[in-house]
Amino acid sequence: MMFDKMSRKGSAEERDLVHKLWDKNFAAMRTPSSGGATKKPLPDVLAGNGKIYIAIEVKTTTRNKFYVDSHQIDGLYEFCDIFGAIPYIGVKFKYIKWIFLSPEKIERTRSDNYRVEKSTALIDGLELDEILGLDKQLRF
Amino acid sequence: MMFDKMSRKGSAEERDLVHKLWDKNFAAMRTPSSGGATKKPLPDVLAGNGKIYIAIEVKTTTRNKFYVDSHQIDGLYEFCDIFGAIPYIGVKFKYIKWIFLSPEKIERTRSDNYRVEKSTALIDGLELDEILGLDKQLRF
Repeated sequence: MMFDKMSRKGSAEERDLVHKLWDKNFAAMRTPSSGGATKKPLPDVLAGNGKIYIAIEVKTTTRNKFYVDSHQIDGLYEFCDIFGAIPYIGVKFKYIKWIFLSPEKIERTRSDNYRVEKSTALIDGLELDEILGLDKQLRF
Repeated sequence: MMFDKMSRKGSAEERDLVHKLWDKNFAAMRTPSSGGATKKPLPDVLAGNGKIYIAIEVKTTTRNKFYVDSHQIDGLYEFCDIFGAIPYIGVKFKYIKWIFLSPEKIERTRSDNYRVEKSTALIDGLELDEILGLDKQLRF
């Protein structure tokens, strides 16, 4: 039950992200949870505008820290390498707008998984417009 | 019931196509039938290899002729224009391997829908390797 609830919550956030992407003139979709007829790894959301193709692993959380299993990121890289897309972890912390992280910039744990902390994500993360090539955030 | 049966059949063929695409080193997926969190038009199958991106509307039939509604093709074009993909109708006639048709080359009816005849599709259609840029079929 708990899992279902989290799962539905995640879906709602994914739908929100897909709508935002269309609003930015990207064609976007949630990929099928069943794997879309393949056991190959698929990202949660895929989008493109003819120039930029992005694949997003979506994480929604009410916490200030969470972990992502390395196998999940390996799968994201594998998909992106073949399809031709830029990999991102799209993070929706509660009450905060979408933040996007390049997996390569995320801290690793000793067991090689990925640790995302809200405080650093807010600094290192990119905004939607930035990953879509629509804006450059100034950094000093 | 009849519709469900046809629907499942189509799904099986779509899965087959997705597997064939991965075998050709394209990352591919069936798109979610619910529209993937968007009411925007989505193709049945989407694939890419970093150079070529293709969006396929899948039709499976036991007949020698079938029609495709113009609105469906309009939707395919719309998706492809935004996402950056080449549109195809992927046709699986029973007992015959996959054939791919560019919508623009398909005959139109007087009501502006698309009419696909097996006899002409076998001549005008492209094979999977051709649309993936892996092969050029000689035509005299």
